[in-house]
Amino acid sequence: MSGNRIPEIRQDSVFKKWVIISPARAKRPSDFKSKKNSGSQNPSSNSSMDSCPFCINHEHECPPEIFRVPHGTSQWRIRVIQNLYPALQQPQNPNPSSQDLDPLVEKNHGSPNYIPQYHSSGSHSLGIPENPIPEVHLSRDLIRSIPGLGFHDVVIESPEHSVALWDLPPHAIGDVLLAYRERMKQLLCNEFIRYIQVFKNHGASAGASMSHSHSQIMALPIIPPSVSARLDSMKEHFERTGKCLLCEIHTKDLLIDESAHFFAIAPFAASFPFEIWIVPSYHSSHFEELDSEKAVDLGGLLKLMLQKLYYQLENPPFNYMIHTSPSGVPSGLPYSHWFLQIVPQLSVAAGFEIGSGCYINPVFPEDAVKVLREVKLPV
Amino acid sequence: MSGNRIPEIRQDSVFKKWVIISPARAKRPSDFKSKKNSGSQNPSSNSSMDSCPFCINHEHECPPEIFRVPHGTSQWRIRVIQNLYPALQQPQNPNPSSQDLDPLVEKNHGSPNYIPQYHSSGSHSLGIPENPIPEVHLSRDLIRSIPGLGFHDVVIESPEHSVALWDLPPHAIGDVLLAYRERMKQLLCNEFIRYIQVFKNHGASAGASMSHSHSQIMALPIIPPSVSARLDSMKEHFERTGKCLLCEIHTKDLLIDESAHFFAIAPFAASFPFEIWIVPSYHSSHFEELDSEKAVDLGGLLKLMLQKLYYQLENPPFNYMIHTSPSGVPSGLPYSHWFLQIVPQLSVAAGFEIGSGCYINPVFPEDAVKVLREVKLPV
Repeated sequence: MSGNRIPEIRQDSVFKKWVIISPARAKRPSDFKSKKNSGSQNPSSNSSMDSCPFCINHEHECPPEIFRVPHGTSQWRIRVIQNLYPALQQPQNPNPSSQDLDPLVEKNHGSPNYIPQYHSSGSHSLGIPENPIPEVHLSRDLIRSIPGLGFHDVVIESPEHSVALWDLPPHAIGDVLLAYRERMKQLLCNEFIRYIQVFKNHGASAGASMSHSHSQIMALPIIPPSVSARLDSMKEHFERTGKCLLCEIHTKDLLIDESAHFFAIAPFAASFPFEIWIVPSYHSSHFEELDSEKAVDLGGLLKLMLQKLYYQLENPPFNYMIHTSPSGVPSGLPYSHWFLQIVPQLSVAAGFEIGSGCYINPVFPEDAVKVLREVKLPV
Repeated sequence: MSGNRIPEIRQDSVFKKWVIISPARAKRPSDFKSKKNSGSQNPSSNSSMDSCPFCINHEHECPPEIFRVPHGTSQWRIRVIQNLYPALQQPQNPNPSSQDLDPLVEKNHGSPNYIPQYHSSGSHSLGIPENPIPEVHLSRDLIRSIPGLGFHDVVIESPEHSVALWDLPPHAIGDVLLAYRERMKQLLCNEFIRYIQVFKNHGASAGASMSHSHSQIMALPIIPPSVSARLDSMKEHFERTGKCLLCEIHTKDLLIDESAHFFAIAPFAASFPFEIWIVPSYHSSHFEELDSEKAVDLGGLLKLMLQKLYYQLENPPFNYMIHTSPSGVPSGLPYSHWFLQIVPQLSVAAGFEIGSGCYINPVFPEDAVKVLREVKLPV
């Protein structure tokens, strides 16, 4: 297999979905075992405390560090490092030349309708500046591909192997959130980056290959389809009503809890059982706008929600994702509002979900809210 | 939890995604165990040969039969039955009254922009007739829901417990495909049905809860988002080029094999490693147009592809889905072309995929093609 080939980002012409094709990902340990053999593996079996490269004093076993918190200390609390198995390849220089980003196969600019298609409807209607990456290849208008350049980092959330994110005090979780912010600000200096996806996978069946608590940051040269759909939908709502959709979404029925600056709800049309959204109660389009005080406040509410899931669902595998705005969109955008989505992984996306794009959720969100409100946490 | 509540279909206002909220699904055995405990369970442990209700002579343990093949025999080869844990609830009569389908919460028809939004862009641009289901509820334009009425059936593909679909001869697989067709034609007599999703889950980590070989058919009162996106994209291509996208997609580079009437390719932008599409080489918008001769021919190619995956990837969990056209679209539609997608489940959709809607595929489709072409099957 083409292990040394650089990654490609391709768009499917039938479903208009993007995919990152990245041979380096195949090198991850046990990535190619069938899930039926590896699915239930306890994540801690992948890396014991003795051999975990994310633990303190094992820094030399890791790919290069980007920064640590506090900066310049040996007793770090957080490290941001490169991913050993990156899905995207870092460009040779921070602002790749057009040659670096040349389409990988022959171009066809003959079709006047082609260029608008490549940019998602989202970026067009939003007035986001054109992508500096050259237009992509198509053969008979059917296939498209651009080089898979970007960044893929890991945020090690604690020097200690057995500490979960929700074990940390609110200010330390706030520091993790501020580390995301710091790295995002660095990455946004790369002009070709269009969107940054911050996410956390916890547990092997939620996609984690390391049990030591960590999150990931991927900086992409495209605006992904879910982001375009979200921004289109929120812009349409704003144009129709003059209001931001997420400024209005706060309802008592679906409220789990709230803090000084954030509220946690079960979304009305949750795709996943016990899905939670943590939303700023103030209007903010970009996660990078988070200040230190609000980071501690969010850290407290995030800790509470993760603890509730841990006790109610017995340490479920879960993912969380930060949904923010693309680069190039002005800060203070009136219709876009960032939020953090938490998804416990309790069921499998199977043929129906893959085929239709619809999920089946066995738990009414209003029932999940009642359960989550009442979870007793140990004092 | 609201186990007796009827299902609801809700649309998320932020991502414009539909979800089926169906408490009955929670009753499936082990559905609520965390995946970390149940993910790797061997599917055969769920139902041994002695106790499997899908086996011959256990018919009385199943929900009502819809039909069997051959009709009226005790020595059946295929049975189509109701799903014991349906995601959608059957209406009391085949063409539910507007009262049956009333929105579940208060209406707000005040917004002139509201109604077009409820219908997906797909159904609008395609000129598909309006949905007979009454318009759905919204509170301050934020939330929408319709009753979760529809049909959810199971197709038992063989009377014998340990026979896999690919163990059957081509004509018997053809009979399974013709059973899909027969049931689809019955379901399409229900005017409120807008789309039928046929799919197969094989293996516990691909979503199967029974190891006895079976497929499922879900008849939906909405056009799901992936279907709308696909039809919009294919219609746009047709309008621009005058050609059907899938009539043109046949390329030697990505061809795995072909039969008299079908070809099997790895799609250029495959989201999943070793993903395969089986496409009719003749133009056909609706799967129901399949005739008996072509069903046997497709049965042979499907058998070959499933065998190749079985031997190359060591009996991987997989899903297949039939992508067809909605009801109400005239047969012979020039831009829509049905196909069957096979997805081995080798990795987990994690935070990045859920957040961005982009998948990461570690295998270049052109490499997967080389491997799949060369798989040696036992003679």
